[in-house]
Amino acid sequence: MNVKRKIAVVITARPSYSRVKTVLTAIQNHPELELQLIVAASALLDRYGSAVNYIVNDGFEIAAKVFNVLEGENLTAAAKTTGIGILELSTVFDNLKPDIVVTVADRFETMATAISASYMNIPLAHIQGGEVTGNIDEKVRHSITKLADYHFVASENAKQRVIQLGENPEMVFNTGCPSIDIASQVNNKTNLDFNPYERYGGVGSQPNLKKGYLVVMQHPVTNEYKDSRKHIEATLTAIQKINKPTLWFWPNVDAGADGTSSGIRSFREKYELENVHFFKNMKGDDFLTLLNHSLCLIGNSSVGIRECAYLGVPTVNIGSRQNRRDRGKNVIDVSYNEDDIVNAVEIILKENKREKSTVYGGGNAGEKIAKLLSSLPLKFHKTITY
Amino acid sequence: MNVKRKIAVVITARPSYSRVKTVLTAIQNHPELELQLIVAASALLDRYGSAVNYIVNDGFEIAAKVFNVLEGENLTAAAKTTGIGILELSTVFDNLKPDIVVTVADRFETMATAISASYMNIPLAHIQGGEVTGNIDEKVRHSITKLADYHFVASENAKQRVIQLGENPEMVFNTGCPSIDIASQVNNKTNLDFNPYERYGGVGSQPNLKKGYLVVMQHPVTNEYKDSRKHIEATLTAIQKINKPTLWFWPNVDAGADGTSSGIRSFREKYELENVHFFKNMKGDDFLTLLNHSLCLIGNSSVGIRECAYLGVPTVNIGSRQNRRDRGKNVIDVSYNEDDIVNAVEIILKENKREKSTVYGGGNAGEKIAKLLSSLPLKFHKTITY
Amino acid sequence: MNVKRKIAVVITARPSYSRVKTVLTAIQNHPELELQLIVAASALLDRYGSAVNYIVNDGFEIAAKVFNVLEGENLTAAAKTTGIGILELSTVFDNLKPDIVVTVADRFETMATAISASYMNIPLAHIQGGEVTGNIDEKVRHSITKLADYHFVASENAKQRVIQLGENPEMVFNTGCPSIDIASQVNNKTNLDFNPYERYGGVGSQPNLKKGYLVVMQHPVTNEYKDSRKHIEATLTAIQKINKPTLWFWPNVDAGADGTSSGIRSFREKYELENVHFFKNMKGDDFLTLLNHSLCLIGNSSVGIRECAYLGVPTVNIGSRQNRRDRGKNVIDVSYNEDDIVNAVEIILKENKREKSTVYGGGNAGEKIAKLLSSLPLKFHKTITY
Amino acid sequence: MNVKRKIAVVITARPSYSRVKTVLTAIQNHPELELQLIVAASALLDRYGSAVNYIVNDGFEIAAKVFNVLEGENLTAAAKTTGIGILELSTVFDNLKPDIVVTVADRFETMATAISASYMNIPLAHIQGGEVTGNIDEKVRHSITKLADYHFVASENAKQRVIQLGENPEMVFNTGCPSIDIASQVNNKTNLDFNPYERYGGVGSQPNLKKGYLVVMQHPVTNEYKDSRKHIEATLTAIQKINKPTLWFWPNVDAGADGTSSGIRSFREKYELENVHFFKNMKGDDFLTLLNHSLCLIGNSSVGIRECAYLGVPTVNIGSRQNRRDRGKNVIDVSYNEDDIVNAVEIILKENKREKSTVYGGGNAGEKIAKLLSSLPLKFHKTITY
Repeated sequence: MNVKRKIAVVITARPSYSRVKTVLTAIQNHPELELQLIVAASALLDRYGSAVNYIVNDGFEIAAKVFNVLEGENLTAAAKTTGIGILELSTVFDNLKPDIVVTVADRFETMATAISASYMNIPLAHIQGGEVTGNIDEKVRHSITKLADYHFVASENAKQRVIQLGENPEMVFNTGCPSIDIASQVNNKTNLDFNPYERYGGVGSQPNLKKGYLVVMQHPVTNEYKDSRKHIEATLTAIQKINKPTLWFWPNVDAGADGTSSGIRSFREKYELENVHFFKNMKGDDFLTLLNHSLCLIGNSSVGIRECAYLGVPTVNIGSRQNRRDRGKNVIDVSYNEDDIVNAVEIILKENKREKSTVYGGGNAGEKIAKLLSSLPLKFHKTITY
Repeated sequence: MNVKRKIAVVITARPSYSRVKTVLTAIQNHPELELQLIVAASALLDRYGSAVNYIVNDGFEIAAKVFNVLEGENLTAAAKTTGIGILELSTVFDNLKPDIVVTVADRFETMATAISASYMNIPLAHIQGGEVTGNIDEKVRHSITKLADYHFVASENAKQRVIQLGENPEMVFNTGCPSIDIASQVNNKTNLDFNPYERYGGVGSQPNLKKGYLVVMQHPVTNEYKDSRKHIEATLTAIQKINKPTLWFWPNVDAGADGTSSGIRSFREKYELENVHFFKNMKGDDFLTLLNHSLCLIGNSSVGIRECAYLGVPTVNIGSRQNRRDRGKNVIDVSYNEDDIVNAVEIILKENKREKSTVYGGGNAGEKIAKLLSSLPLKFHKTITY
Repeated sequence: MNVKRKIAVVITARPSYSRVKTVLTAIQNHPELELQLIVAASALLDRYGSAVNYIVNDGFEIAAKVFNVLEGENLTAAAKTTGIGILELSTVFDNLKPDIVVTVADRFETMATAISASYMNIPLAHIQGGEVTGNIDEKVRHSITKLADYHFVASENAKQRVIQLGENPEMVFNTGCPSIDIASQVNNKTNLDFNPYERYGGVGSQPNLKKGYLVVMQHPVTNEYKDSRKHIEATLTAIQKINKPTLWFWPNVDAGADGTSSGIRSFREKYELENVHFFKNMKGDDFLTLLNHSLCLIGNSSVGIRECAYLGVPTVNIGSRQNRRDRGKNVIDVSYNEDDIVNAVEIILKENKREKSTVYGGGNAGEKIAKLLSSLPLKFHKTITY
Repeated sequence: MNVKRKIAVVITARPSYSRVKTVLTAIQNHPELELQLIVAASALLDRYGSAVNYIVNDGFEIAAKVFNVLEGENLTAAAKTTGIGILELSTVFDNLKPDIVVTVADRFETMATAISASYMNIPLAHIQGGEVTGNIDEKVRHSITKLADYHFVASENAKQRVIQLGENPEMVFNTGCPSIDIASQVNNKTNLDFNPYERYGGVGSQPNLKKGYLVVMQHPVTNEYKDSRKHIEATLTAIQKINKPTLWFWPNVDAGADGTSSGIRSFREKYELENVHFFKNMKGDDFLTLLNHSLCLIGNSSVGIRECAYLGVPTVNIGSRQNRRDRGKNVIDVSYNEDDIVNAVEIILKENKREKSTVYGGGNAGEKIAKLLSSLPLKFHKTITY
């Protein structure tokens, strides 16, 4: 009899789901793997876009759900959410008995997955370690690297960094980022093949997208959360000045989300934004299709650094959130300043170039990761290399 | 007005308390620091030696107690203990509002302190990072390094390792290990100045200590916990063969503690150990005094590597627990094998040498650490150096 | 030396704080009592009105804060919030060592206070037991009665019911409801002495209040939470039809709060409510002053049953939430039906009567409770009387 | 298609399992029911007899395991164990989606089951409510009654009491106690058909059982836990004096367990108990067979009140633990006093009578309960009857 390896993947947020969707599919399709999908934290919550609904609609079976987001307007809630996550994920792992646990990226609550698995001597795979951003995410990311047994990183620089962190080079694999897999699929569409207003609703005016449009996606930055309102206002004012058709995506949850969200709400109450439509969320591939046909992306989402590099979509990257992340030539970095934002957009609109790059992978990360998960030796004992 | 910096130190186990006692005293005595002592986890529990009682007797005021040890004979309990720790320490920090949080060494539950503090943007100091041992403790230790802002390490090798982990060299300080501070105090006593049987009770025979005695202290090893019974039996058999006056110290808690403890209990029920006395616990300085006048230490306690290096007490170090830790010339390493243990003890008894070393510090770590805590810039934002 | 009794009161929500404010003041002022005020759950959260800010502004010192609201759109979150509450309040009680713990009313999370105290053998006082409402609150309320040692009830019927539940009659006291204490203070004001728009902001139009106004306050009902949107829409439509100046108070948190809140938001987006102003929250005495000078109260808040009985403010009580609660003649009960609501308001406006009643007390509950807390024998051992 | 009702039963301790084993079997065998067995708390722990092993050996499939026992020598741990239980059982219920949840009796942690189910609007059945004991168990028991929707009580007095607590009489059923079901099965055995020393090991001497033997089972009493050592010593001394072959069963967990357990250990170290053998645990039916052929039972176990009533085994019931519970004529009540215990045993040995009673049921409770679970209307909304 051929016993399949049980691979538990814990999804804690909408963007993480989008990022690793092709990994989930590849695990599910692999003859020697069994997917145990665990949905937790903000991925279950309506006000962060209910990733769980997309997951179900995409046909994945959910092995367990864990509600663990503690409510609060401060950082204490982030810590406590992580504590509850450990408490409950330990029970889930104890009942599901996975052979490998997979944790994704660097959101604060992913530490719960990492601690539960590593403390329970379950081999831990980490997707997307080794990157540099200079905020709390970075503490989390490198800390998880030191708990993880297998590292599936997204770029060559990330690989070198994980190795320099003392990890065994034989367990560090540059698979590329699985988010690029989806970008590679949408890249074939020659035009925007759906009406985003009809399919996703949203609020605000409905500018005509035919002659080109901007996309905005700006999240609060954890250790600058007291300034998140001021930061979002700079972007709002810039967009108002540029006055082009704009599709704005609501921020996901983080300490400080309320500063960003309430900043947008107040601005909308004060000013008429006649060229701006707001979406709460969108399926990953539709979002990338939309992005692929946009004039440029503005904000601080990692999508500007990653998928847009592959697609060649120009990106105005604002502030510190993507600091020191590898980037292609598609990115212009600016500070939280409305004039800088306006200038950068004007340059992009004038140059009208598409600079493509495979710095974050070539579009087959999901398959590579599934193959590694099926073949790597099961181990949870390691030591630093120096 | 001179506002003192509030320094929260979280003590989760008896040996951690012993290790940092001089740090606590130095913080308490420092004119610009206020100590907020938090006692948690097994430090509160009777069956792990009630460190809390020693803490109170030593005159420290306790700011908060947190019971968070989840009971269980498996690793799940270790993970859940950590989760509960985060949940509760976050509340404690939220109420006490410390300027710096200090976490000690690498026990699994110290991760709770590290996560709560770092997620709440409270500067985190880590005592004793950068060491190498090759088990789950090592995952925890380096993971905490990646969350910590200040590093007070115990040896030059540890310092280099923390720097190589990408930490800012200006925040890495070789203070020596504070456990050596206590060793330096007891080192002046020319003989054993108390009767351990009278002062600490314990069970078993009461061999005459005048002509020399052995000390045994062997803990279960987390990722070998299924073998802990077999491992302890090798040592028990060796001690039975050597048949010298022996003072045996009960293991502290860890996953697998029950294998070690039950192994000792069963052995005692089967065999008469006429030269062995068992202690549950002992005040740190008394223990060091006892050790300082012993013929040698046998087991896998870090005290054999650290304090015994400073004191020059010969040590038979068994198994993997202290693997790759820096050591002086006082140590003979052996495997979990009764003959190897017997041979090593015989060599030591024959050679009768005292090899001293300051590899783990010169006896003033507490003062150094307090001084740094009072003067370092308060910061919680960092990025990897490469 | 005169050692004061330490009385821990746990406040978990804005309305609970308003209700027992005079108790807190009376405890604080009592020479033989020391108040240990613990603020937890939604009382700490911005989106439920930040009771904590009012508490601080009112000059109370907070002994501990506990964030324990788990986020989620389902009932699971209510259960988990209670679980986290127990975990953390136990630690708080363990550190504060109160002589008596006081829990208020019947919100789901108050069970955490009751369990922690009773399990820890701390005498437990329950304010406002013995009432009947016919929903989950009632399960909670009577369940707490069976855990509590002292019962401070608000009406004679409630007293008889607690006794019939098997409680020792000597420990059941009809003190009246402390919320009436505040009502008795505001009752002396001959007119509305502040501008609510200026003092509390809020959103919506600012109708002229001179010629009379309505007040609306409608909360979701826990075990009808799937219908909360439909229920609030009936009220919204009724208010739109009546078209009088209306001050609408945002609902507090409960499972289903999002149905109620989102119902209001959607309605506002679709229709112009030109006579309606929305407040998020208001200080208790200002709210009562406002209510005292209103034409009538509409909704399902207990304030309509209690304070309005004392003040004689006519009340249209909608749906099941106050079922079987004692009421004065000021109340007209209606179902979730817009026509019934409209009719009831019309009757009230036509009759224009003020029917006053002391069914819920005469305005000195706070003093009575403090006196009992200082003099009752400390006990936590009880048995059913039959 | 015939969809089976899913019945979740939560087992938290060895004695609870023994008590409801026939209920589990009857649910499993019922064509319209599906058993979802959840094993939690001390039922999972080795040092409380690992009920989980018996459950597996008896052929039951376990749907989920939850480790939630917080370690500690005080009552705080009991509260926190309950809090963790709620947190985790909510997740389990959320994932298993039972139609009815069943909770058993009155141990402190059963409150977690009751709160999770009732807060989540899952109909809650309570086995063994309405009894009177006069300690913390009673607070828990009646408090659960006020949360439960169906009541399966063990005696006529209990039924009347639950009704007087305000429960709908149509939902209160005197099914008898399921523990009697097992007693009715063993009652047919004409002699002790196994050697308990061989089958269950244990420690101490192995007295000859041929000429009759005593059985002792004494648990710590929650709200007397400071005295548990003194209490157990009275019993130990009495047994030493009586000096008959005695089979002693180790106590189960409760706050204070360590006082009882350590009292036994110390006594054994000081005195030779040449006629006493100690068992850690035993399968329920073997235990009842052993009891059925014993001279009498001594201690405070409910088995003396219940099963021994049915079997007619004389019982010396010590102290307050079974206070006011219904009892047959088989019981002599004594205080924690060695002379009283000795006298009572002497009377029993002299009289040599078997007084049988069906006060706790006739041996078919399991079947009755399963039938009710399959046919009762699913409801979770109730109100007090007065």
